[in-house]
Amino acid sequence: MPKKGMLIVLSGPSGAGKGTLCNLLLRKRPELTLSVSVTTRPPRPGEVHGVNYFFTDRENFEKMIKKGEFLEWARVYHNYYGTPRRFVEEQLKAGKDVILEIDIQGARQVKENCPDAVFIFILPPDIEELKNRIKKRGSETEESFNLRIKSAEEELKAISYYDYAVVNDDLEAAVEKLESIIIAERCKVYRNMDLIQLKRREGINI
Amino acid sequence: MPKKGMLIVLSGPSGAGKGTLCNLLLRKRPELTLSVSVTTRPPRPGEVHGVNYFFTDRENFEKMIKKGEFLEWARVYHNYYGTPRRFVEEQLKAGKDVILEIDIQGARQVKENCPDAVFIFILPPDIEELKNRIKKRGSETEESFNLRIKSAEEELKAISYYDYAVVNDDLEAAVEKLESIIIAERCKVYRNMDLIQLKRREGINI
Repeated sequence: MPKKGMLIVLSGPSGAGKGTLCNLLLRKRPELTLSVSVTTRPPRPGEVHGVNYFFTDRENFEKMIKKGEFLEWARVYHNYYGTPRRFVEEQLKAGKDVILEIDIQGARQVKENCPDAVFIFILPPDIEELKNRIKKRGSETEESFNLRIKSAEEELKAISYYDYAVVNDDLEAAVEKLESIIIAERCKVYRNMDLIQLKRREGINI
Repeated sequence: MPKKGMLIVLSGPSGAGKGTLCNLLLRKRPELTLSVSVTTRPPRPGEVHGVNYFFTDRENFEKMIKKGEFLEWARVYHNYYGTPRRFVEEQLKAGKDVILEIDIQGARQVKENCPDAVFIFILPPDIEELKNRIKKRGSETEESFNLRIKSAEEELKAISYYDYAVVNDDLEAAVEKLESIIIAERCKVYRNMDLIQLKRREGINI
C-alpha cells in the first residue's frame, strides 16, 4: 500500500493571486494533483470544462450537496463552488499529494473534515494591490467589486487557523515558499511512521 | 525591533551524519548562525577553539552549570557538552535563526525550555551504514563502539517528540530538505504576527 498523500489547501482572499500561484506550482511540481472543483458560475474566456472547473447547473449542484458528494462547498455571491469528495480521497489513497485551490469558506469546511491537511494562506502584498488585481479582471460591476473588497477584508481574519502564510509579492519567491512547505510537510515525523516501521525491519529497535 | 529568530535543533543518533549536514547547510545558508557548544572533550585533529567548540575543563564546565549558563548540557560518555544560553538568546533577539547541532539528551532539554524551537531528527539510512560511519571515525575502542551503537538505538526512540525526520541517505537531497524546512517554518502563521500587524497598518482590518 503506498504512503497516503497529503491534502494541501491553498486559500486566501479573492484577488490575492492564488490561482496564478497554483498554476506555477503545478508546472514546477508535476507530481502534485490538482483537485478540479465543480461550479455553477459560467466559464470565463479560456476556461475549459474538466481542467479549470467542472461546470454544472444549480439544480445538479444542489443534488450533489444532498448526496454528500462534496468535501467542501460554498456559495460565493450567486454561484456555488465545491470539491468532489471521491476524487480527492482516491488520489490521497493512491499516495498522491492533492492541491485544493479554494476560497476561505471552503477551506473552513476542509479544516473541520480533514484537520491534518496543510493550510496555506496566500496574502496580497497590500490592499491597493488587491483592488488593482480585482479591477484588472474586468469582469466586475461596481457593486460586485465593493462586495469583493469587503469580503476580502473579512476573509483575512481567517488566517489564524491556517498553518502557513505566504505573501504573494514576488511570484517566483512565493512559489518557492510553497514548494518548501510541501517538501517540509513530507518530512513531518507523524507523516513518516511507515519510514520508522521500515527502520525497525532493518534492525533498529524503535 | 527585528522579528525574533528561530531556534532550529538538528539532532539524531551519533553517527547519523548530522555534523556533515550541518556544515553543508551553513555553507548554503550563510544567514544562519551556528551555536558553538562548550565541551570538556579534547579537540580532534583539525578542530578549532571558538569555531567547532569552546574547549574547557571539567571544573569550569561544572561552574557554568551551577550558574545556569547553559540552554542545555549533557554528559556523553566521559565528557560534557553544553550550549551557552546567552549567545543563543542574543542571536534570536537580533532576528538571527540559530542552528543547534546537538545530541539527543541535549535536544530533550531544549524541547522543555524552548517548545517553539524546530526539532529535526537526522536518521541514518540504515543501521549497517551507521556502524560503518562510526567505524570510519577511527577514534573508537571496541567498548566505546558498542556503547555508541546501543546508545544510538536507544536514542532513535526519541524521534516521537521531533517535528521533522530527514533520512541522510543522499547529502544533497537531505540538505535541500533542511533548507525547505527552514523556509517553511519562516512562513508559519504564528511566526508572522508582525506581518499581519503590518497589513493592518496598510489598511486591511484584521
